[in-house]
Amino acid sequence: MSAGVTLSPAEHVALTQLCAQAAHLADAGQWIKRAELFAQDCLYLLQPRENFDRGFPLATMRFESRGMLLDRAYAVTETIFHEPYYQRHMVGAPLVTAVQDVRIHCEANYAAFRTKLSQETTGFNVGRYVDELVLTSQGLKFAVRRVIYDSEMILDSIIHPI
Amino acid sequence: MSAGVTLSPAEHVALTQLCAQAAHLADAGQWIKRAELFAQDCLYLLQPRENFDRGFPLATMRFESRGMLLDRAYAVTETIFHEPYYQRHMVGAPLVTAVQDVRIHCEANYAAFRTKLSQETTGFNVGRYVDELVLTSQGLKFAVRRVIYDSEMILDSIIHPI
Amino acid sequence: MSAGVTLSPAEHVALTQLCAQAAHLADAGQWIKRAELFAQDCLYLLQPRENFDRGFPLATMRFESRGMLLDRAYAVTETIFHEPYYQRHMVGAPLVTAVQDVRIHCEANYAAFRTKLSQETTGFNVGRYVDELVLTSQGLKFAVRRVIYDSEMILDSIIHPI
Repeated sequence: MSAGVTLSPAEHVALTQLCAQAAHLADAGQWIKRAELFAQDCLYLLQPRENFDRGFPLATMRFESRGMLLDRAYAVTETIFHEPYYQRHMVGAPLVTAVQDVRIHCEANYAAFRTKLSQETTGFNVGRYVDELVLTSQGLKFAVRRVIYDSEMILDSIIHPI
Repeated sequence: MSAGVTLSPAEHVALTQLCAQAAHLADAGQWIKRAELFAQDCLYLLQPRENFDRGFPLATMRFESRGMLLDRAYAVTETIFHEPYYQRHMVGAPLVTAVQDVRIHCEANYAAFRTKLSQETTGFNVGRYVDELVLTSQGLKFAVRRVIYDSEMILDSIIHPI
Repeated sequence: MSAGVTLSPAEHVALTQLCAQAAHLADAGQWIKRAELFAQDCLYLLQPRENFDRGFPLATMRFESRGMLLDRAYAVTETIFHEPYYQRHMVGAPLVTAVQDVRIHCEANYAAFRTKLSQETTGFNVGRYVDELVLTSQGLKFAVRRVIYDSEMILDSIIHPI
């Protein structure tokens, strides 16, 4: 991780807004709009930290295109029967770790809270996003979003992407 | 929610600082100074997500002017007897959703933690701010702050604004 | 706390990136690299809010130079036997409270989560950073970082700096 990389303040704003949008659309359950924040050709990975650190491929979720994200959007809203819960994502400032031509590498810590009907809010998953962003003709998009979580003990199950 | 709206980087800084100030003044119990971050003519609303989403008016707190906020400031520091607790607010990056002339619409996720004397810290309330900010002769101020919380199960009670 | 202080947007970015780096390096257990974010002549203090507010000197950790931080880095990685845990820091936007020549005073709320092997994530410490930053020939560095925590009930123990 290096602080030597410099984006312009306007680029930092765009980056921060994109990360905030991903969080807000997830929390609002707007999974189709959220999928549109990803490039057509993309990778979304939800993986425990232990596997990521050791380079193991096993992941809790792996979507290898925007189409697969849209498929999950359909699944979570139309086909999966589960106890409903709200998600709420807190996302830290994206730390820019490298910039290569049109690709920005950055990481941001997150904490995802879950609230079930008539129950207390619980913090159910914390970790970090390891992202690669690309500038497309439709604006800044996620080319790669790896969600690397510390919380290896998963209560119940993870239905929605984080 | 749209990423197409553009404020200047300096305006984003002002917006982010105002939201941070609101959090820090609340956490320091400086309720009078915090009320001064609001326009004279303002609305502060604390409302469960379920009511907000359905357009129901019922709110846990509703203050319709800076004067009412100052009244609450007086109440919480001088007249209400309750078990003391610290608040600590984590606030996400404000996502700008619309800009109309001098009015900025933005949303920010929050998580409020509560710490009672000699007890563990608990996350007691999470949700999002749905804000409208105006530029006044005294700088950027909250015209509307709606605090929309996911946590419909409230432990004990909410004494302080969030 | 005053919003009247103005840094340039580029300076705000540098400040935010430095705070994010400190969080990410701590979470990655890279304590030596993290110590290098501090000026040679620095102060790191971990102190309960009650003591800080009353001006009491007693602190849970007090490191008075980068050398002492490096000593702690060695201790936590090489000499202290403890049940391993991951840390994850959520850090709010740094609120700039004063700027004097080359010294920036700012505060940022934080929540530190702890995850032990095969256990649920718990929020174990929340509070605020009260920082003083200086611009050195190696870039922006922490001259003073006071970690003032609300959570006076500490479960188990605090091994790693926060």
